[in-house]
Amino acid sequence: MTAELTAHQLITQHRPTLDQALEAIRTRAYWSPHPEHPKAYGEHGSLDAAAGKAAFDALLGTRIDLGQPGTDDWTGDEVSPYGIALGITYPHADVEVLLPAMRAGQRAWRDAGAETRALVCLEILKRISDRTHEFAHAVMHTSGQAFMMAFQAGGPHAQDRGLEAVAYAYAEQIRTPDTAEWTKPQGKRDPLTLTKAFKPVPRGIALVIGCNTFPTWNGYPGLFASLATGNAVLVKPHPRAVLPLALTVQVARQVLAEAGFDPNLVALAAERPGERIAASLAVRPEIRIIDYTGSTAFGDWLETNARQAQVYTEKAGVNTVIVESTDDYRGMLSNLAFSLSLYSGQMCTTPQNLLIPRDGITTDQGPKSYDEVVADLARSVEGLLGDDARANGLLGAIVNPDVKARLEAAAGLGEVALASREVVNPEFPEAVVRTPVIVKLDGAKPDAEAAYMSECFGPVSFAVAVDSAADAVELLRRTIRDKGAMTVGAYTTSAEVEEAVEEACLEECAQLSLNLTGGVYVNQTAAFSDFHGSGGNPAANGALCDGAFVASRFRVVEVRREA
Amino acid sequence: MTAELTAHQLITQHRPTLDQALEAIRTRAYWSPHPEHPKAYGEHGSLDAAAGKAAFDALLGTRIDLGQPGTDDWTGDEVSPYGIALGITYPHADVEVLLPAMRAGQRAWRDAGAETRALVCLEILKRISDRTHEFAHAVMHTSGQAFMMAFQAGGPHAQDRGLEAVAYAYAEQIRTPDTAEWTKPQGKRDPLTLTKAFKPVPRGIALVIGCNTFPTWNGYPGLFASLATGNAVLVKPHPRAVLPLALTVQVARQVLAEAGFDPNLVALAAERPGERIAASLAVRPEIRIIDYTGSTAFGDWLETNARQAQVYTEKAGVNTVIVESTDDYRGMLSNLAFSLSLYSGQMCTTPQNLLIPRDGITTDQGPKSYDEVVADLARSVEGLLGDDARANGLLGAIVNPDVKARLEAAAGLGEVALASREVVNPEFPEAVVRTPVIVKLDGAKPDAEAAYMSECFGPVSFAVAVDSAADAVELLRRTIRDKGAMTVGAYTTSAEVEEAVEEACLEECAQLSLNLTGGVYVNQTAAFSDFHGSGGNPAANGALCDGAFVASRFRVVEVRREA
Repeated sequence: MTAELTAHQLITQHRPTLDQALEAIRTRAYWSPHPEHPKAYGEHGSLDAAAGKAAFDALLGTRIDLGQPGTDDWTGDEVSPYGIALGITYPHADVEVLLPAMRAGQRAWRDAGAETRALVCLEILKRISDRTHEFAHAVMHTSGQAFMMAFQAGGPHAQDRGLEAVAYAYAEQIRTPDTAEWTKPQGKRDPLTLTKAFKPVPRGIALVIGCNTFPTWNGYPGLFASLATGNAVLVKPHPRAVLPLALTVQVARQVLAEAGFDPNLVALAAERPGERIAASLAVRPEIRIIDYTGSTAFGDWLETNARQAQVYTEKAGVNTVIVESTDDYRGMLSNLAFSLSLYSGQMCTTPQNLLIPRDGITTDQGPKSYDEVVADLARSVEGLLGDDARANGLLGAIVNPDVKARLEAAAGLGEVALASREVVNPEFPEAVVRTPVIVKLDGAKPDAEAAYMSECFGPVSFAVAVDSAADAVELLRRTIRDKGAMTVGAYTTSAEVEEAVEEACLEECAQLSLNLTGGVYVNQTAAFSDFHGSGGNPAANGALCDGAFVASRFRVVEVRREA
Repeated sequence: MTAELTAHQLITQHRPTLDQALEAIRTRAYWSPHPEHPKAYGEHGSLDAAAGKAAFDALLGTRIDLGQPGTDDWTGDEVSPYGIALGITYPHADVEVLLPAMRAGQRAWRDAGAETRALVCLEILKRISDRTHEFAHAVMHTSGQAFMMAFQAGGPHAQDRGLEAVAYAYAEQIRTPDTAEWTKPQGKRDPLTLTKAFKPVPRGIALVIGCNTFPTWNGYPGLFASLATGNAVLVKPHPRAVLPLALTVQVARQVLAEAGFDPNLVALAAERPGERIAASLAVRPEIRIIDYTGSTAFGDWLETNARQAQVYTEKAGVNTVIVESTDDYRGMLSNLAFSLSLYSGQMCTTPQNLLIPRDGITTDQGPKSYDEVVADLARSVEGLLGDDARANGLLGAIVNPDVKARLEAAAGLGEVALASREVVNPEFPEAVVRTPVIVKLDGAKPDAEAAYMSECFGPVSFAVAVDSAADAVELLRRTIRDKGAMTVGAYTTSAEVEEAVEEACLEECAQLSLNLTGGVYVNQTAAFSDFHGSGGNPAANGALCDGAFVASRFRVVEVRREA
């Protein structure tokens, strides 16, 4: 490389981090190199809060020119869920020019090898990390997440998931050595000897189809897994959440160029309103890998139609929490209240159906009837969100009118145990901020099933009365099998019920959190330790992150010669 | 386990072998625990040549009753390519009974864990290995392979590929620990602490669809990869090659039972003539993994239609050898002659198109014209197969009438450089034994392209005259991209041509053998070291064996609790 960023620099700066990440995915103990506290930023070249805010403000109303070939126009009309029109435009690509340009640098990127690719990815992540405050505003004003959540989930947690993908990609590629000497004994004759060379080769161009709610968190695993395995990556952001991924692409292009590689290995495909380029890009022969987060309908369409590509989808699911018994009633209520409120339930991991025996539950506070449990939970949510400032900090804004419409319709589905209320955001008066609704449904009634057996994405949950713990487990199984689930939770003090829930999750393949009453929530997963999704039920065909998520993004070509 | 075969016995007997296999797939140096020499068998409980033959003879005309539930009938009408009607019948399954029975034992098999599953698989392989002589006859009289090849490829080499798959499956499953303690600091507050348990869980029932030519070699990787990852396995053999897989299923069921597991975790699905049960089984919801070796048409059909399953296919391809120059003309000719002759070219790895510059090549014997090269190769094949006994030992028998018809039609496709001749097999006079045909084609003529650009499975190769080395490389690229290739070979003394061929193989994703002139042939790959297929071109969507071949056969379910 004749580059500003030398291999030596990359190794010195990032190899220790890569090694720590490799160790973390092996032990799955807690680890992260990306600080969660806003105040941790501001030194060693990172932007502090004020600088980050200023950097974001300076982007508003500008054109982000990535220097991409084939730019035939400029597009972009993002309006923040907090009411600000971002006024930022992005390159609109002529893909007939852009895609061939993206392939031009693939050979050098392939030949650089797994370690260099991993270290370049770590440099990209480091520069993004330095701008976490700026990215936090970008994520906040596209997803509607409250600032603190946008900061953490859109910043360090997303970077962690990107780094985790790089670690898995690296580990997978070095399972086969670069070379091998093969000597096969032939009795009294000379042995057969071959020299073998093995090289990981990319699939081609990878397409990342971003989502509205978690542009970086859901975008980074696929982006970095594909890039680290030698592929070029085309990022197609959600039209309402372009900025965080455009900045990501900009950083990646800069780092690639500085390291002596073709910046066109990473490019942005912003689209005009209504253009729906994801569908046309997805079936092009150049596109060999697709990562997608979004609706089940388009996810299924991709799996069916993009047959030339490896397709990784995270789609809709219906998440269940079984509430059977607890020895910490208050802890359970406050934990659940937080889970239902965080980002207005606009997480793929938010619980939707709370299955509660109609005869009530046993607790450390004595027996509680179904009605009491639901009323106490409603009170917990009210208490948590009673203060508007705190409510704004937890809820964020409703991301789009569809979610608002679903929330409003939910009140008509059953008896409302907790009504949604409007919260005013004094800083952003145009933001649509709503507290969650809790609706009571009778699990035995067929008309209720239509409601609780479909995903109602947003701040809506159903307190479903069930006949018994066994009934709850059976409904849980059916829900996972038919609708998919990113998460399952359960509260029980019974070893028997615990085993039944665990067995249901093992057989139907869903990730289970048991008896969470403290500061960890069912909707949160930690990179390097928790799997996000299982890849074994209809909610997602892969998990973040495991060997299967990276192993098919490259192939190994062997060249053998007589020694 | 209350079993005849205890965990302690399994560990003592097989853990060292598993460890050696894990080391071999890491270094990819030569290794095999399965002897290639027929005389190596006969001690330590293994059958010697006479006992193996006697065991095979005793099977003829019998019913192989596997004790499977749902057996509604008996079926089987295998006739050896050597002329013997085997007269063996197998259970015909009512799948509505058999499939549920196969699921009954899955929980215990899942809970046994990765190590026990691997060791049980190794015990199955050990018992098969002990009966290698018996299996050799079974493979010979279903595939038409000559005895020595049936012995080696159907015995130790197939067992190696099975063991390799077990090693990859085991390594993949233990990448995630069984448990983890997760402690996240919270500044001055108490840390968050979770206890996490991780368990590999199977997909469901795996279907192995066997092929006629290599029932064990191509069947074992999928069978053992799926079984070792916790799945039940239903084996649907090719109707002409049931016996080797029926014996395999029999051994597997016996070992599973002795180790305290449900024998129905492995079952056979033999079919009635014309029943085509592969297609109906493949789309059943219980079937979650499919391994298939066979025609492109059915492979493509499976990939398109068996959407509920992970589908691994090895289909047709067109294998190319570029002959550009050599410093060992005789070595090249004899190496190629052997490659074309072995098992009458009925290997998915046999070269079909020999691309030779029309202006000739340079060699250590001086320049050779295109015509001379082709004539010398023809003479090499004639020399190799001149003696009928030797010819029979190399060629084996034509496996079915389709191959014979293609061979006969090939002579009409161009100028015949080497005519096929009939060889009499004195031991089996009904065997159809034929030497290979070599047909000259002009690569520049469009009507020739129709011939050399389709797979002509069997003892047919085309000596294609090309304009130049660059023309050859370009044709190689196009062939791999459009038709797929299991193998590529090249002979060149030019560093420039070598690099061009290598680059073509890296970009189009095909496995390359360079300048083979000794006792290793382009159509042979060694388990633990060579990849069979690349999974990156149309000939196969997976490689034997790598992480991708096993990683999606199971998922990991996490259960987390507050510590």
